[in-house]
Amino acid sequence: MKACILAIGDEIVAGLTTDTNSGFLSQLLRGAGIDVVGYMSVADDETDILRALRRALDDADVVITTGGLGPTADDLTTACVARLANTPLDLHEPSLRAIEERFRSIGVEMPANNRKQALLPRNSEPIPNLSGTAPGFILTLSVDNGGRSVLTLPGVPREMKRMAEETVLPWLVQRAGGGAIVSRVFSTVGLSESRLDEMLAGCMTPSEGRLSFRAAFPRLQARASVTAPSAAEAEARLVLLEGRIRTRLGEHLYAVGDEGIEETVGRLLIESEQTLAVGESCTGGLIGHRVTDVPGSSAYFAGGVIAYSNEAKVSLLGVDPATIEREGAVSEATVMEMARGVRRALGATLGLATSGIAGPGGGSPEKPVGTVCIAVAWEGGEWARRYQLGSRSRSWVKEMTAQIALDRVRRHLAGLSQ
Amino acid sequence: MKACILAIGDEIVAGLTTDTNSGFLSQLLRGAGIDVVGYMSVADDETDILRALRRALDDADVVITTGGLGPTADDLTTACVARLANTPLDLHEPSLRAIEERFRSIGVEMPANNRKQALLPRNSEPIPNLSGTAPGFILTLSVDNGGRSVLTLPGVPREMKRMAEETVLPWLVQRAGGGAIVSRVFSTVGLSESRLDEMLAGCMTPSEGRLSFRAAFPRLQARASVTAPSAAEAEARLVLLEGRIRTRLGEHLYAVGDEGIEETVGRLLIESEQTLAVGESCTGGLIGHRVTDVPGSSAYFAGGVIAYSNEAKVSLLGVDPATIEREGAVSEATVMEMARGVRRALGATLGLATSGIAGPGGGSPEKPVGTVCIAVAWEGGEWARRYQLGSRSRSWVKEMTAQIALDRVRRHLAGLSQ
Repeated sequence: MKACILAIGDEIVAGLTTDTNSGFLSQLLRGAGIDVVGYMSVADDETDILRALRRALDDADVVITTGGLGPTADDLTTACVARLANTPLDLHEPSLRAIEERFRSIGVEMPANNRKQALLPRNSEPIPNLSGTAPGFILTLSVDNGGRSVLTLPGVPREMKRMAEETVLPWLVQRAGGGAIVSRVFSTVGLSESRLDEMLAGCMTPSEGRLSFRAAFPRLQARASVTAPSAAEAEARLVLLEGRIRTRLGEHLYAVGDEGIEETVGRLLIESEQTLAVGESCTGGLIGHRVTDVPGSSAYFAGGVIAYSNEAKVSLLGVDPATIEREGAVSEATVMEMARGVRRALGATLGLATSGIAGPGGGSPEKPVGTVCIAVAWEGGEWARRYQLGSRSRSWVKEMTAQIALDRVRRHLAGLSQ
Repeated sequence: MKACILAIGDEIVAGLTTDTNSGFLSQLLRGAGIDVVGYMSVADDETDILRALRRALDDADVVITTGGLGPTADDLTTACVARLANTPLDLHEPSLRAIEERFRSIGVEMPANNRKQALLPRNSEPIPNLSGTAPGFILTLSVDNGGRSVLTLPGVPREMKRMAEETVLPWLVQRAGGGAIVSRVFSTVGLSESRLDEMLAGCMTPSEGRLSFRAAFPRLQARASVTAPSAAEAEARLVLLEGRIRTRLGEHLYAVGDEGIEETVGRLLIESEQTLAVGESCTGGLIGHRVTDVPGSSAYFAGGVIAYSNEAKVSLLGVDPATIEREGAVSEATVMEMARGVRRALGATLGLATSGIAGPGGGSPEKPVGTVCIAVAWEGGEWARRYQLGSRSRSWVKEMTAQIALDRVRRHLAGLSQ
């Protein structure tokens, strides 16, 4: 089965917003063994939408659209698909009730134009939207008209993702004759894309399951998907594959599921009843920012010190000026004292510290740009190491340092060797 | 003139990376009055690339491609364009010398397959790449073949952007008979997209110049572009328009040019010989992270304290426990003491502090999620205010708070009213 993905919206083609929906859908579909032949993006224009739909249907068995399902006059997706299929729009009562209910739950009366969102092409199958007002739909064209299918989804990523995973993917797998599909995401750390690919190469045959990859730096994930006649059988086979993947990835696997390493660290801190404090030099606050992006992090995050200057390292973290004098601010000795100091200053059970040369300036032959030191301190122990990350860019060095530092905390909490 | 943008690469169609190039190019082209009819994305596959090129040339006068100009076997863009034009590839000596020189400058011998990057279609015009190895090219098809043009650019955003601005845009404007084009970006703060649109509505006629917009939250920018027979005349007219835009945007304009407000703040700090320290509660380190993303920020950024807990606010920032008891951690009084305290603790001339309820939990009827307090303290003065930002999402509240906080520092340094 081949699929083409079509993003519809003036804001995309004007360069005002970036389309991330198509990439998400592609990874999801490829995991199910569906070949994605390409993406198109067009503005909210009837002629452009119709031409793109026709081309996409020439190329693929199914076309998935995102966007253009809103209540306003420039939302044209539904009308264009109906015109293409030469079929009228009918009011879909259950969808109308769901939209009305959604407004009632937030104490707002439904504006009249939202009724439009419950108009669906005759003989289409609605795709329920449990996170917003616009339902999508699946319309299969008549055999005379090619017999291919158009699936429409809203453009809001949060709504689109849920509908794609809960309704679109199972439908596509059924349609491909595959029965049920189950998939699982494996979040990894410390690997490049090509290394991840290598490590998983040959771990399943195409008949056992399929792998797809997604990189959103610093996150790198693999998704394993299994199709089988029944969901129970697919799940049972996925459990077997998960075992193999876990063995292959070993300590590089930090979570099964789509989560950042800061979420894993948060969970481990809660489980072990520990608290974290961060002393950040080269990362400048990025680690604190990532840790506090997790809801509920105030339960385990004591806070931190952004010790950008040597004075701050000394006065707020209690680093010995002689250590900085002797070893430099970017050294295992200094960063160890920073980790110790921030743990003490904030009364946390764990201290994490970073110091490095993010560039572009500040490098030297002994300590070039990308030289980074990371330390973890705890009751009765501490650990530090120096890394040479290279000088790709300032923000890259910061992001990599934060990622490695959080991974060091994960390893410590999980009882893995450093 | 109509343009279509084509992104080429397996990694895009596999969902492994997100295409941000097309949006950048669209904004650039629309600023020059060129109508962008849509985007397409295809894999590194000859059949798919040729089909997409043909369709794009059906729709538009010019097609701009990104990607597929690398040295490896799966880089097919140049070969496909040559095949479409039915023209051979010739070795372009100046491009080969530029590639060899690039490798020499980093002390590496040029791998043999990089020679491929200097093979360009006969009669094409090279687009020099001053930031990487792959040159692009402009090839105008014969009149028999439609007389339309294909412009190729590499997929690496940094290389692509520079080549698009320095070579592609001027070429397109010439081709459209427009003489020269100059454009300028206006970076704004404190506005929604629709408000920005309103504020600039009617400030220039289409014959005077053109406006386009780009939003990459929290950044929101307008670009004004002027075409004229000569660059000098275009520049003179742009200066007039810039005056009008400055008047319209007033204090919402923080920079002419594409920069973050943290860069503007950095420049103002250097100019006034001041230093900044941040006391962050709800932003969790995000302000420090943004400030330290600017190269050279160590010259003016003293550091900060991530005072996530009340204990940290008291012990590290010297906030009076009675203030927190009486007013709450999210209050003008507490955040004022935090700003004062962090300024003192880090020996900076300016202290900036944030405290708020980022959600999703922690809200109350008096202080719902999205309630945020910001303070600035300096020698002899201080300022604080409470905001109701709403509860869109945890990370949105953090980003908005950081943006407003940095803007308060900008306003203070620029001598604007708070």
